[in-house]
Amino acid sequence: MFQRLLIANRGEIALRVIRACRELGVESVAVYSSADRGAAYLDLADQKICIGPPAASESYLSIKHLISAAELGNVQAIHPGYGFLSESAHFAEVCRSCNIAFIGPPEEAMRKLGDKVTARSIAQEAKVPTVPGSDGLVTDENKAVELAEKIGYPVLIKATAGGGGKGMRVARNDIALKAGLKAAAQEAEKAFSNAGVYLEKYIEKARHVEVQILADTHGNAVHLWERDCSMQRKHQKLVEESPAPNLPASVRKELCAAAVRLVKTAGYYNAGTVEFLLDVRDNKFYFIEVNARIQVEHPVTELVTGIDLVKEQIRVAAGEKLSFKQKNIPAEGSAIEVRINAEDPANDFRGCPGTITALRIPGGPGVRWDSHVYTGYTVPPFYDSLIGKLLVHRATRGEAIATMKRALAEFHIEGVKTTVPLLREIIANETFRDGTMDTTFVERTF
Amino acid sequence: MFQRLLIANRGEIALRVIRACRELGVESVAVYSSADRGAAYLDLADQKICIGPPAASESYLSIKHLISAAELGNVQAIHPGYGFLSESAHFAEVCRSCNIAFIGPPEEAMRKLGDKVTARSIAQEAKVPTVPGSDGLVTDENKAVELAEKIGYPVLIKATAGGGGKGMRVARNDIALKAGLKAAAQEAEKAFSNAGVYLEKYIEKARHVEVQILADTHGNAVHLWERDCSMQRKHQKLVEESPAPNLPASVRKELCAAAVRLVKTAGYYNAGTVEFLLDVRDNKFYFIEVNARIQVEHPVTELVTGIDLVKEQIRVAAGEKLSFKQKNIPAEGSAIEVRINAEDPANDFRGCPGTITALRIPGGPGVRWDSHVYTGYTVPPFYDSLIGKLLVHRATRGEAIATMKRALAEFHIEGVKTTVPLLREIIANETFRDGTMDTTFVERTF
Repeated sequence: MFQRLLIANRGEIALRVIRACRELGVESVAVYSSADRGAAYLDLADQKICIGPPAASESYLSIKHLISAAELGNVQAIHPGYGFLSESAHFAEVCRSCNIAFIGPPEEAMRKLGDKVTARSIAQEAKVPTVPGSDGLVTDENKAVELAEKIGYPVLIKATAGGGGKGMRVARNDIALKAGLKAAAQEAEKAFSNAGVYLEKYIEKARHVEVQILADTHGNAVHLWERDCSMQRKHQKLVEESPAPNLPASVRKELCAAAVRLVKTAGYYNAGTVEFLLDVRDNKFYFIEVNARIQVEHPVTELVTGIDLVKEQIRVAAGEKLSFKQKNIPAEGSAIEVRINAEDPANDFRGCPGTITALRIPGGPGVRWDSHVYTGYTVPPFYDSLIGKLLVHRATRGEAIATMKRALAEFHIEGVKTTVPLLREIIANETFRDGTMDTTFVERTF
Repeated sequence: MFQRLLIANRGEIALRVIRACRELGVESVAVYSSADRGAAYLDLADQKICIGPPAASESYLSIKHLISAAELGNVQAIHPGYGFLSESAHFAEVCRSCNIAFIGPPEEAMRKLGDKVTARSIAQEAKVPTVPGSDGLVTDENKAVELAEKIGYPVLIKATAGGGGKGMRVARNDIALKAGLKAAAQEAEKAFSNAGVYLEKYIEKARHVEVQILADTHGNAVHLWERDCSMQRKHQKLVEESPAPNLPASVRKELCAAAVRLVKTAGYYNAGTVEFLLDVRDNKFYFIEVNARIQVEHPVTELVTGIDLVKEQIRVAAGEKLSFKQKNIPAEGSAIEVRINAEDPANDFRGCPGTITALRIPGGPGVRWDSHVYTGYTVPPFYDSLIGKLLVHRATRGEAIATMKRALAEFHIEGVKTTVPLLREIIANETFRDGTMDTTFVERTF
């Protein structure tokens, strides 16, 4: 096991890693930008090192500064947390070249999975379903119609250089497809100077379901069941839970097995998440991407499995074998997480930095609170707006929802605006309670 | 189920009951003395009613005021919490006469178990071991020697009117016994004007092990395993855990079965705790008493079983059947609770009221926090000094201790002195870590 590691991150995930280190008996070195100077969680690390000014590019994203801190701190490993450099294969490579263990997947797997086309072909190699579509660009109208009939309408026409919805069309029949191809190509040409378009099956109502995996460097890979993260706003997850509600057992089993096949095929190790779209009409799932890091919502999985994912990450990076087998990983009860962000709902959910002047956090049975903030803490304006993750774990989903409802009612904060009022509405909403939401639900409803 | 209930208590247990009510969809009425006016947890109840001045005798112990509040609040039930009137059969009787359900055991069982002699005979009827001793007073020296040889030395000579260690002698052989009987009788005569003494087996090193039970009004009674509460100071529990460490499986099984037999024999229902002394030399256990209420340390059991004891109390009082069978009650992992009291260790642990000016509480994996306090809360001088219960739950005892250690390291409070420094020492102590403590450990060691 490492004697000492550096945490190349801030806020709640930095504290989360400090907690794991303390429990493992590993010393920790925390880094901070001058904007985070004085944050109390830094004092829970064995050493703290300032790595630069507030701008992330000169602190939490500065490989040079981080490696200098690692050398100053005399560490054997670096935990990147999530965000910042956590999915940078380059950073992982620099760590290795400095003889510092990177607590994450191997660079090679990160690179392959980071490229959409390569990731898709790895998925196909592992016999994991991907969203059906054209192999490359569509140039022939008639071949496009043929393909669309094969994969089934509706289909989505997408610009290869696209983004922000430009050059994108939904077609529900042959006529619309032909017209759409022309219109999309023209729009794309205009917007991106690239008229290339391709086809993809259009999944009108999808859930976001992801599978947590863990793999060691000895060839063992397991899944830790799934999480449903369909409650999103602008692609930002708001509510996550496990198990995914209303998921047939056979689909769950296949989904989890597919995730394990995929990471094995990719030569992946450490913790990771395989994300899928799940078509709500027929429960067919399609691989989207792999998040090659620990995720914000990892505690949901910790609650239902009883496994401490951050400790496992550190153990795997230290070369240890997984201490459990697939069949011994439980999935007990129901866990839900809500993300509490310092954001102003009246101002399009923009970040709302400021000093917390009063704070009463929920507790009691079934409640877990992961946060670095406290009364007197100042939320800096420079980073992610997440100030805390409120989690519940109960025997059934109904009980978990009741506990979350009362926990959110207990939450009281002054000084910054937060997402809590929206979260209360979501938890009280019938669609959520029925577990029949899809990824468009929050934006359609609130 | 009740529509509305009143909580005849304050502080963390009042908040605990409010939480259960909210999750059950039952409205709650909180009461407060003028000393607790402004405590934030009161606002989580559906109604709050002032019941008098700070003195407990005129507020939380005033049956008249409580019943008036119950009538004002139009409730169908009263939850007494722990302490105050929770074990008052008279209060239970008044509630019944006012047509209000008392959320606790029947008066008859409370009365019988509240009397030491009757409780002992109920235990004997239920074939539950009691501490061996003389049946009544010892008057004949030779018969005393005979008895002492039968139950085995050492024996304890106790004054029937005794208290505070007066008229008490330990005897390790016949000669000491004969001398002790005389000395104890003389001392007792002097102190209490009653020379009557009796004999009891003296258990030199004992653990305090208790069994949580739940019984409904339909004749179903189950145990929810045991808790070890040997870490005490002046008979005040400091650390509680489940399962009890180093307890042979056969003893555990017998202990739990004995507790169920006892409460069945007593005609008991609702939640209760059967307390035992466990002789550390031979793991023989002896019944001490029944605590006819929810206990401070009940969350330890909630963590290992996944059962919400306060919700169950309310369900049972509403006439519901227990929804689980003995064989379905799990005992998973290891849970530990420490009690955080506002006390001054430098001043013989006297209560240390005051305003909390800074507070950072632990969180993250495996941590539960039950408390009504927050930055800005003033601990009044009139009541119990408990300000919070910190709990951990992990797969193994070793991991639970590691989590407790780091959680206590995270705990930060300003404005009042607390037991936290002592708790940190206990958790770090080798005897605790080995699980070889007895009830004298804390006072001998710290």
